[in-house]
Amino acid sequence: MKVLFLNGPNLNLLGQREPEIYGSTTLADIESIVKRRGADQGIDVEFRQSNSEGELVDIIQSAKGRADVIVFNPAGYTHTSVALRDCIAATGVPTIEIHISNVHAREGFRRHSLLAPVCRGQISGFGVGSYLLGLEAANIVNATK
Amino acid sequence: MKVLFLNGPNLNLLGQREPEIYGSTTLADIESIVKRRGADQGIDVEFRQSNSEGELVDIIQSAKGRADVIVFNPAGYTHTSVALRDCIAATGVPTIEIHISNVHAREGFRRHSLLAPVCRGQISGFGVGSYLLGLEAANIVNATK
Amino acid sequence: MKVLFLNGPNLNLLGQREPEIYGSTTLADIESIVKRRGADQGIDVEFRQSNSEGELVDIIQSAKGRADVIVFNPAGYTHTSVALRDCIAATGVPTIEIHISNVHAREGFRRHSLLAPVCRGQISGFGVGSYLLGLEAANIVNATK
Amino acid sequence: MKVLFLNGPNLNLLGQREPEIYGSTTLADIESIVKRRGADQGIDVEFRQSNSEGELVDIIQSAKGRADVIVFNPAGYTHTSVALRDCIAATGVPTIEIHISNVHAREGFRRHSLLAPVCRGQISGFGVGSYLLGLEAANIVNATK
Amino acid sequence: MKVLFLNGPNLNLLGQREPEIYGSTTLADIESIVKRRGADQGIDVEFRQSNSEGELVDIIQSAKGRADVIVFNPAGYTHTSVALRDCIAATGVPTIEIHISNVHAREGFRRHSLLAPVCRGQISGFGVGSYLLGLEAANIVNATK
Amino acid sequence: MKVLFLNGPNLNLLGQREPEIYGSTTLADIESIVKRRGADQGIDVEFRQSNSEGELVDIIQSAKGRADVIVFNPAGYTHTSVALRDCIAATGVPTIEIHISNVHAREGFRRHSLLAPVCRGQISGFGVGSYLLGLEAANIVNATK
Amino acid sequence: MKVLFLNGPNLNLLGQREPEIYGSTTLADIESIVKRRGADQGIDVEFRQSNSEGELVDIIQSAKGRADVIVFNPAGYTHTSVALRDCIAATGVPTIEIHISNVHAREGFRRHSLLAPVCRGQISGFGVGSYLLGLEAANIVNATK
Amino acid sequence: MKVLFLNGPNLNLLGQREPEIYGSTTLADIESIVKRRGADQGIDVEFRQSNSEGELVDIIQSAKGRADVIVFNPAGYTHTSVALRDCIAATGVPTIEIHISNVHAREGFRRHSLLAPVCRGQISGFGVGSYLLGLEAANIVNATK
Amino acid sequence: MKVLFLNGPNLNLLGQREPEIYGSTTLADIESIVKRRGADQGIDVEFRQSNSEGELVDIIQSAKGRADVIVFNPAGYTHTSVALRDCIAATGVPTIEIHISNVHAREGFRRHSLLAPVCRGQISGFGVGSYLLGLEAANIVNATK
Amino acid sequence: MKVLFLNGPNLNLLGQREPEIYGSTTLADIESIVKRRGADQGIDVEFRQSNSEGELVDIIQSAKGRADVIVFNPAGYTHTSVALRDCIAATGVPTIEIHISNVHAREGFRRHSLLAPVCRGQISGFGVGSYLLGLEAANIVNATK
Amino acid sequence: MKVLFLNGPNLNLLGQREPEIYGSTTLADIESIVKRRGADQGIDVEFRQSNSEGELVDIIQSAKGRADVIVFNPAGYTHTSVALRDCIAATGVPTIEIHISNVHAREGFRRHSLLAPVCRGQISGFGVGSYLLGLEAANIVNATK
Amino acid sequence: MKVLFLNGPNLNLLGQREPEIYGSTTLADIESIVKRRGADQGIDVEFRQSNSEGELVDIIQSAKGRADVIVFNPAGYTHTSVALRDCIAATGVPTIEIHISNVHAREGFRRHSLLAPVCRGQISGFGVGSYLLGLEAANIVNATK
Repeated sequence: MKVLFLNGPNLNLLGQREPEIYGSTTLADIESIVKRRGADQGIDVEFRQSNSEGELVDIIQSAKGRADVIVFNPAGYTHTSVALRDCIAATGVPTIEIHISNVHAREGFRRHSLLAPVCRGQISGFGVGSYLLGLEAANIVNATK
Repeated sequence: MKVLFLNGPNLNLLGQREPEIYGSTTLADIESIVKRRGADQGIDVEFRQSNSEGELVDIIQSAKGRADVIVFNPAGYTHTSVALRDCIAATGVPTIEIHISNVHAREGFRRHSLLAPVCRGQISGFGVGSYLLGLEAANIVNATK
Repeated sequence: MKVLFLNGPNLNLLGQREPEIYGSTTLADIESIVKRRGADQGIDVEFRQSNSEGELVDIIQSAKGRADVIVFNPAGYTHTSVALRDCIAATGVPTIEIHISNVHAREGFRRHSLLAPVCRGQISGFGVGSYLLGLEAANIVNATK
Repeated sequence: MKVLFLNGPNLNLLGQREPEIYGSTTLADIESIVKRRGADQGIDVEFRQSNSEGELVDIIQSAKGRADVIVFNPAGYTHTSVALRDCIAATGVPTIEIHISNVHAREGFRRHSLLAPVCRGQISGFGVGSYLLGLEAANIVNATK
Repeated sequence: MKVLFLNGPNLNLLGQREPEIYGSTTLADIESIVKRRGADQGIDVEFRQSNSEGELVDIIQSAKGRADVIVFNPAGYTHTSVALRDCIAATGVPTIEIHISNVHAREGFRRHSLLAPVCRGQISGFGVGSYLLGLEAANIVNATK
Repeated sequence: MKVLFLNGPNLNLLGQREPEIYGSTTLADIESIVKRRGADQGIDVEFRQSNSEGELVDIIQSAKGRADVIVFNPAGYTHTSVALRDCIAATGVPTIEIHISNVHAREGFRRHSLLAPVCRGQISGFGVGSYLLGLEAANIVNATK
Repeated sequence: MKVLFLNGPNLNLLGQREPEIYGSTTLADIESIVKRRGADQGIDVEFRQSNSEGELVDIIQSAKGRADVIVFNPAGYTHTSVALRDCIAATGVPTIEIHISNVHAREGFRRHSLLAPVCRGQISGFGVGSYLLGLEAANIVNATK
Repeated sequence: MKVLFLNGPNLNLLGQREPEIYGSTTLADIESIVKRRGADQGIDVEFRQSNSEGELVDIIQSAKGRADVIVFNPAGYTHTSVALRDCIAATGVPTIEIHISNVHAREGFRRHSLLAPVCRGQISGFGVGSYLLGLEAANIVNATK
Repeated sequence: MKVLFLNGPNLNLLGQREPEIYGSTTLADIESIVKRRGADQGIDVEFRQSNSEGELVDIIQSAKGRADVIVFNPAGYTHTSVALRDCIAATGVPTIEIHISNVHAREGFRRHSLLAPVCRGQISGFGVGSYLLGLEAANIVNATK
Repeated sequence: MKVLFLNGPNLNLLGQREPEIYGSTTLADIESIVKRRGADQGIDVEFRQSNSEGELVDIIQSAKGRADVIVFNPAGYTHTSVALRDCIAATGVPTIEIHISNVHAREGFRRHSLLAPVCRGQISGFGVGSYLLGLEAANIVNATK
Repeated sequence: MKVLFLNGPNLNLLGQREPEIYGSTTLADIESIVKRRGADQGIDVEFRQSNSEGELVDIIQSAKGRADVIVFNPAGYTHTSVALRDCIAATGVPTIEIHISNVHAREGFRRHSLLAPVCRGQISGFGVGSYLLGLEAANIVNATK
Repeated sequence: MKVLFLNGPNLNLLGQREPEIYGSTTLADIESIVKRRGADQGIDVEFRQSNSEGELVDIIQSAKGRADVIVFNPAGYTHTSVALRDCIAATGVPTIEIHISNVHAREGFRRHSLLAPVCRGQISGFGVGSYLLGLEAANIVNATK
């Protein structure tokens, strides 16, 4: 199984960004942890990040036939991108939406995801752990394809 | 670590209820699977179910000092119960909200959870798998208490 | 045919409650009238009442396989209970929603029923007569199962 | 007792319109069934249909003094006609609103009736049976005038 | 000057309709009073009434070139008719909206007029007097054409 | 009969304010015209103006027992003053709301009057003529006290 | 192929109505142009117009079996008629909604069409050209029936 | 005079729940204080608490004829229970709504009480003092029955 | 302790205003009763009233350092005054909002107070008794400063 | 005449994307068909596609002076892009909005286009035919520049 | 050039009001700073403050012909005063709206200014600096009159 | 001090875009003016522009440690970009939002900025002058870091 972990805008700042809040774990650190956990289970893990909505659309399109599952942290585009929603629906690769913070406990606009209705499921609020849960969820989703 | 899996209204019907849709896995089956997985990790797992909002409040209150984490599938009370919200906040036992179906892909009123803002995180859409992910998430939440 | 007449919160007060408005007909009186009418048509009529949402869920669950049709006056839970909605949908016993008063001519919040979309139909505004119309409707619904 | 069954726009198409869904019962068939049932009870039944809001207003106005009760299926005008609402209120003939389908289980705009607040009650969702229930309801309403 | 007094649905019932509230003045009585007042001022007054939205559109269209001002009591169509709004705008005859009752003191939906933005002004709440004020207003509007 | 014409904020600017739009008629001019018309009919007319909500409340309170009818152009306070609404209701002097412009054809917030529900009626859109219509309306209202 | 061009309220005024804006093309002129274009393609074109909602319902009902496609400019009824929506759905003749002006660039209420969800498509904003595009669209729709 | 102090969900946790915020006063302590104050005034005070909506309905129903006034802290059911609203209205025992915290200074949903319109009055924000004010208010309400 | 009782617009009319409803108790009577009750407890009570929003702001500002607690019946400004809200927050004198009537049982707009979030608490619905409860509440608030 | 056909996100997937629904026509196929039709009419047709909002802005800016009309299928950016709206308005090249599916018959958010108010017109629902209608519309728009 | 700096309710408290937050700069201090800066540029600066909406209207009216630009911090009246909006529009003196705090980062109701649409521009969030920026902006606005 | 002036979509068109409205000042001209003014004050000014949301995110991220203040005209992304909002918050460089036009006097959707709550302040409506005021504001913001 191949799983693409796709990361939206500003996630490249993890670790340097308000470290007293978000800790010193960088996206590269998360990548290492998840890849190691994936390797243990024979899963091929790829990490991508982009700040551009259009480039994220490109990456999802290119995942078709290359990835079995996408684990997607769409960050700020969660609430505003119909283009990504249409892309997930059109490409047909099963997609899992994850969030580091508990989006339901923040500003009102963060509670509504345009993407969730076309994803298989949503995981939010477990910090770096959301990525590991995303990997587990990918296993579950892949088994029921 | 002790984890309480709390199940809201109608979840006692799992397996008998529209089996062509929900499959033949009963809540007792889920309990077995989760307990076995918990046992492997040295986690004490308890399952409770009630159709009554007040009884669910009672159970959460009594979990204080007895459970380290609650994994809660509040079902129909997700969207309507301030009493459960206040109970989770008052009792202070870290709580994880889970849903079998993808609540974000159903009727509009199911997209809004009154409980999520006082839970640590939310997992939805992975079928029976949401319970196993809930167990993993309990590990993560317990480690960061 | 067996028909369960299920009555929600405060309906046990009928007859004693503001008799100048609601008349002196008690729920027991209604039960007698409906049972007699049912007996004339060879219909087995059962009456239940509860003030508790959870108990109403229990009763509907237990009606599966025991009742052919439920005639349900959900009273105050009409507008607030997702648990009852899910229960009606999950149990699958055809259900008819009735109201004594014309709910569409009262406060705005009474015009929206969370249950109606999963019921076969709705009857409101005919006083005690709503129960007799409910019995007739049960005949119709049962004939088209 | 005389009861006027008034039918709004497109109800003249019953029977020919999507017969696989609505069956082959025409409005004329319903008229026969209801009239026969009325005759059994000594009730004089009249059927009228119009696609025009203004003509429906005319018919309701002319029913004053000629009909004891109106059973009204306003169809598409249910949700948009203040003129019909004012007409029912001004004329004062007790009116019962009926619908063939369960309007509460369809598009959102169909859940709100402008007419219901000035009618005695509302019956929806019982197919052709809504007309027979309307006749029973007319008996009840007439008895309590 | 010629003034057309146009009356919408149910206004033909004035005088017979709830006389204890609306008094015994009929639309014909109002026509007499207004015509006499008009005659004193050399104004040619015409009265028309229809329950049909389409016919009211026809009458307004035909008023072009025949009437200098329209005094329009649109009754129930006030709140629902884009067709009448477009007709007033297209025909270009200056139009004054009048109401017998104070529409701002009744149900919420009566506070919003679709027609008022294309009328010269609105008068509401003065009973039969609204017609006489409408005549005065027609003088004012005609003088400033 | 005594009629108080009460004018809200900025109406003292009439005539000097954008004269190409509002013309050169000042509030003093309007006062002369209305007083002359009033004198012809034996009506005692008084004009007051204030930019202060509190002072307008004071004036309405002091009108009790001194004025038979108030004709009130509340200008900017129309949409924002509960204090004036309560004052009109508490004082009990019949009040007519007038506006120079057609408030229903301007910004959305101008379409909602907090005062109209406690006034006898509303006249808007006839320029200076709204004051003369207000005088006629005062006659009508006074006759039906 | 036979195409019915159906025109709603006030479209009979085209050409005489604000000619400086809408030009001097009358509905009769449009009929000639479209018929000529239709004749070139062997399409039988019929034009109908009515100001009455009920009559428009009648015409659509009678088109069943007589017209292959309806091109419908519903004008003011676009935003208010559930009766026409139900009629299009019930009759089943493929219908194309057209508008002369760009309804999306006008008042907010014009942006919402009750009819569009039951039509095959919508064309708006091309003036008289919307009729010619409607004819082309009828060809496309007819080819894919 | 007999006063029933009724306490909704989670109020049994007072004193143990976030004591740094809510202090160490338990519900039993409050009961002692209020009973002593009541005894001084010859008032019979009873305290009840339940986490169950249905049981709270039962208690209010049984208060009829046994209590002169109910002082009710409905906690989380304040915002969600039509059943309790109907119960207070049906039973007719004068009821005073109290809250420990200032509900108007918290989350938006806490600002709207479904119960307040059927209570005599509302007191919120005075901590334990809200109970003592509730006792004083009971005196006032009882004197004006 | 010194308590300022501040009264907003139209409260000077108490006693004369609709006495059949509000009784014959004037604001001066209330002042006497409250002052007497205050004197019994060694509390210095001052009463002020103004119809002007700006003057009420002035009075609250001047209370700083002169009053320990303000008991404020803001009447019509409750729902519309950000200036008073800011004033209470800026001045810092603990303020209690009171209302004679039950504002939650009246028009919808009266249910929302702009001031409550910056007050210590709110008391509504106890008639003249709201003032006496306000005095008690001032004692409670002062004790916890 | 030169016409630019601009295609938004995910339209490059046409033909491969859910072919059982969208058919096997690719965007390249559409380009061929439209170019051939354009060539017949002496129209120079250019096709562009991008998944990036910013790049679509760049392309529209560069079309100024190079294209006479833009036919734009903005896909997912239809509902979310103020940048594209401002770009169309600023550049001034007449633009026609087209959609393959009937956007008015899908999810609620698809019914609102941020771009339509600055376009000349909108065509939706005719499948590949929307492109050919777009070409015809470009002719019409160009003729009336 | 003459610039009037007009200050709304509670701004007279600056410096004494929560000094740990707002600092010890009083309105008099700001006046000195701005006047000195104005003097350097040959600008005549006047400062006014009032807590009364009506008096602020009076001051703006009297500024006509006396001030070239008004720099207005309307404080709490920003969100509630149509009277001030109309006054700015009627008087025609170019007006700049300023705020000390960032109103867009506070309670939701502070984000909407009734005045901004009739002002030249808005500056918010720069503390005392908003006044100095207001002076610069006055220069810019005056240069483009 | 170093200040980055960042310009969003379509601002590269300034000067060529509707010059009769926006004048002939290009973004390059503005850059010259601001740089000269900056040089006078020893401020290092940099100008950047992009039509791409993702690229704007990149630029803001790269400004960390390189710029002391960002003056940002986000143009069309003001109302739609959570990605930019998160970027400003994550990067921590103090940011000032500016607009050339008065966004509060245009279409409703332009009144709401997603970015303003994470910026230090907002300046809108002063044309090219908004850039110069932005430079002054940068001085103020930098002094209070």
